[in-house]
Amino acid sequence: MNESEKKRFSSYTLAQLAQTLRSGEVTSNQLTRYAISQHELFGRGLNAYREWGPRRALTLAQKADYKFKQGSDVGCLQGIPISAKDIFGIPGYSTYAGSQARLPNQWQRAGPIVQNLQQQLAVMMGKTHTVQFAYGGLGINHHWGTPRNPWDREQHRVPGGSSSGAGVSLCEGSAFVAMGTDTSGSVRVPASYTGVVGLKTTKNRWSTCGIVPLSPFLDTAGVLTRTVEDSIYAFHALDNASSSIDSALEFTQAAMAKAQDKFRIGIDLGRMWNPCEQSIQNVCMSALHALETDGCRVINLDFPEVEQAIELRNLGSTISAELTEFLQSELPDWIASLDTVIKERVQTGDNISAVEFLRRKRRIRHIGGAAEKQFQECDIIASPTVPLSPPTVEELEFPGQYMPKNLLALQNTTVGSILNLCSLTVPVGMDHNQMPVGFQLMAPAGEEERLLSVGLRLESLVSAPKLTL
Amino acid sequence: MNESEKKRFSSYTLAQLAQTLRSGEVTSNQLTRYAISQHELFGRGLNAYREWGPRRALTLAQKADYKFKQGSDVGCLQGIPISAKDIFGIPGYSTYAGSQARLPNQWQRAGPIVQNLQQQLAVMMGKTHTVQFAYGGLGINHHWGTPRNPWDREQHRVPGGSSSGAGVSLCEGSAFVAMGTDTSGSVRVPASYTGVVGLKTTKNRWSTCGIVPLSPFLDTAGVLTRTVEDSIYAFHALDNASSSIDSALEFTQAAMAKAQDKFRIGIDLGRMWNPCEQSIQNVCMSALHALETDGCRVINLDFPEVEQAIELRNLGSTISAELTEFLQSELPDWIASLDTVIKERVQTGDNISAVEFLRRKRRIRHIGGAAEKQFQECDIIASPTVPLSPPTVEELEFPGQYMPKNLLALQNTTVGSILNLCSLTVPVGMDHNQMPVGFQLMAPAGEEERLLSVGLRLESLVSAPKLTL
Repeated sequence: MNESEKKRFSSYTLAQLAQTLRSGEVTSNQLTRYAISQHELFGRGLNAYREWGPRRALTLAQKADYKFKQGSDVGCLQGIPISAKDIFGIPGYSTYAGSQARLPNQWQRAGPIVQNLQQQLAVMMGKTHTVQFAYGGLGINHHWGTPRNPWDREQHRVPGGSSSGAGVSLCEGSAFVAMGTDTSGSVRVPASYTGVVGLKTTKNRWSTCGIVPLSPFLDTAGVLTRTVEDSIYAFHALDNASSSIDSALEFTQAAMAKAQDKFRIGIDLGRMWNPCEQSIQNVCMSALHALETDGCRVINLDFPEVEQAIELRNLGSTISAELTEFLQSELPDWIASLDTVIKERVQTGDNISAVEFLRRKRRIRHIGGAAEKQFQECDIIASPTVPLSPPTVEELEFPGQYMPKNLLALQNTTVGSILNLCSLTVPVGMDHNQMPVGFQLMAPAGEEERLLSVGLRLESLVSAPKLTL
Repeated sequence: MNESEKKRFSSYTLAQLAQTLRSGEVTSNQLTRYAISQHELFGRGLNAYREWGPRRALTLAQKADYKFKQGSDVGCLQGIPISAKDIFGIPGYSTYAGSQARLPNQWQRAGPIVQNLQQQLAVMMGKTHTVQFAYGGLGINHHWGTPRNPWDREQHRVPGGSSSGAGVSLCEGSAFVAMGTDTSGSVRVPASYTGVVGLKTTKNRWSTCGIVPLSPFLDTAGVLTRTVEDSIYAFHALDNASSSIDSALEFTQAAMAKAQDKFRIGIDLGRMWNPCEQSIQNVCMSALHALETDGCRVINLDFPEVEQAIELRNLGSTISAELTEFLQSELPDWIASLDTVIKERVQTGDNISAVEFLRRKRRIRHIGGAAEKQFQECDIIASPTVPLSPPTVEELEFPGQYMPKNLLALQNTTVGSILNLCSLTVPVGMDHNQMPVGFQLMAPAGEEERLLSVGLRLESLVSAPKLTL
């Protein structure tokens, strides 16, 4: 593969790749070999994958190419290399969910999302690392090792979590779409930390069947891509049981047209902007001003539900009880050897009463309902995605460091989860550590199209930081 | 109103009443006046209603008649007198949910079921009594008094609960359809105890919005009618946002045709048949033999999920935690003055942990899934509806009597609730106290049509006991 071919693969959008595959100019086999070669170059250092499957990928690429030759188009991700977090059940792969042991067979089975990807003949490259049972926002995994954030060559900084290998797989070029899950930020934090785009879909928009649960009440599936344009394409592919390239292009066109609207961007300069590292705040303010200069209206909101959502999360939300019950009922043998980053919270999961658990669920529904009204005054609510620059793995090992940093990293993303919003992070600059900064957009439940359109507008106005591996 | 007219009203099916209304032979005003006169005759003694609304009913009847005269058919319950349990929000009525004080305004609002009834111009006669917050199977309410079971003229026997006034309203003739709710038997027990037909629908088939919750996890809405034929008609009316008399008659015809099938009736002679009073067991066995003689196959099942469901219920299920949380969050002022029949269980609702609560929910889903497989071998599962003859109010006041009798009364109905089945009770005879005996049929989730067809077959084979007031 020559350098110009490589450059083309890395710079083409998903839609362009899909068109190139259909024109016969490039084969899925070539694209997959490119992805494999990228992993061979950088994989050892970055450690994105729990299970890397180049042979299985080439077999899938062959199938996709065979269909292309037949003139058969089975979906808009046909022949495109993708990765999936190791909590999705994928036939032919093992599911560890970040644990040291393989989960029982039922967790290897495909749910609706993976079935959709299989039907489209997307080329699964492998399963990316996760924080154990997806319970943590920084990406630490003591058993499998924490993937390396490719933006810092000197120090081992965290890649964000819990979909800790997802963003890294995009950065190294071994996947063009990375499947993740997001309960309180597990797609958005790693996307922000690795300088890519992350979409958390609305609860129940995409089925979480076939995915190891963390919190059935808050779990969502999501997707990471290199750009917002790709996010639109991938969202369309995953949101429809059968998508064609024509429908994807039409959907993209509609989003592009919509992106020209004069959006009202709401911000609340309370908790989501402070505490927040100054350099991150500055970069996000610049992004906001770019939108304003381009004709969007910035509206200062009084948004008490933000503070309420963060307080509720600090109380413990419902997650530790849900995970504890799941482990006790389904995986009791796993409990003794849990990763230290999740062990304590599983042990305290038994501490709240059923009444308190139900009260928190009620509270979550209640403040979500109240938050919906904020969208009468604005179309989108914006904030920094993560108020904390990616810490180094080393500093997190100091006693007392992990938990507060984990809480802070997830602070802003948790708001969208608790308030039942869909949410997107878009890379908009670099912080004082020369690490990427993500800007979070949030829209009401079900309004992914609006969210992606605003994201596209933002992407056209700011220059995302560029990574050189 | 002469006696032959009265006789006609009491003996006509809902379909016949609807046709008579449409032919102009009878008006809704006449039918409603009949219902009012029946209540005036028997209401004081029977105490079915928490709020009786003859004027509002006559206004509705006038509207229904006006539409009939215009040739406008707004639904198959147009002009038919009905009653609703006092936990449905109904504009123009107050909701007490069996409490001594009126609940806040939001609980007076109509949910989808009541909206449907309003759109059809069904004639709401009033709100029937309930056990406080629908939490009890016998029908006791110390504040409002316990409605009298009309089958015993000498002693004050319970009418069954928690929809304690629903069956009584049908018996006295002040309603032709009675709306109830069923969390572990609250439609079926009062139907069985008052010699009428009760249908508990599949969870989530009918919305429970606009109904005061007992257990959001298990609550269902249901309907009581004088006969299975009426149940089919009412089910159709309530199951469709817009029903016409033609569609209702067609649906009834289909059920009648289906009723001729050679059904396989499964029974498990374990817990649901023993403990069970001998006379009830005998009557139910006769009903079963009638079905067998008529060509149905009776199949002895080994059905461990029955025992598992009852054990889980005896542990406490999820209900007391759900009710406790609801009261603490929404109606804290109600807690101090709760009826003694529910007070203790609300106070202990706080005793289980969130993990235990989630474990019970998981267990309920698990045994429900296992139970579904039993229906590979049979079409319907049958049992006595209530294994206990209706106790007297007096005997329940002796210390230690209420709770075990309440548990036993709900034992067989709770099975269908926990196993996620739909279920019907059909009156099939009299017990040793000359009180009516109901026979319970259960079908898989969503199979109400099958259930009603078997019920119709049973109704044609056995003679339901006749009540003379």
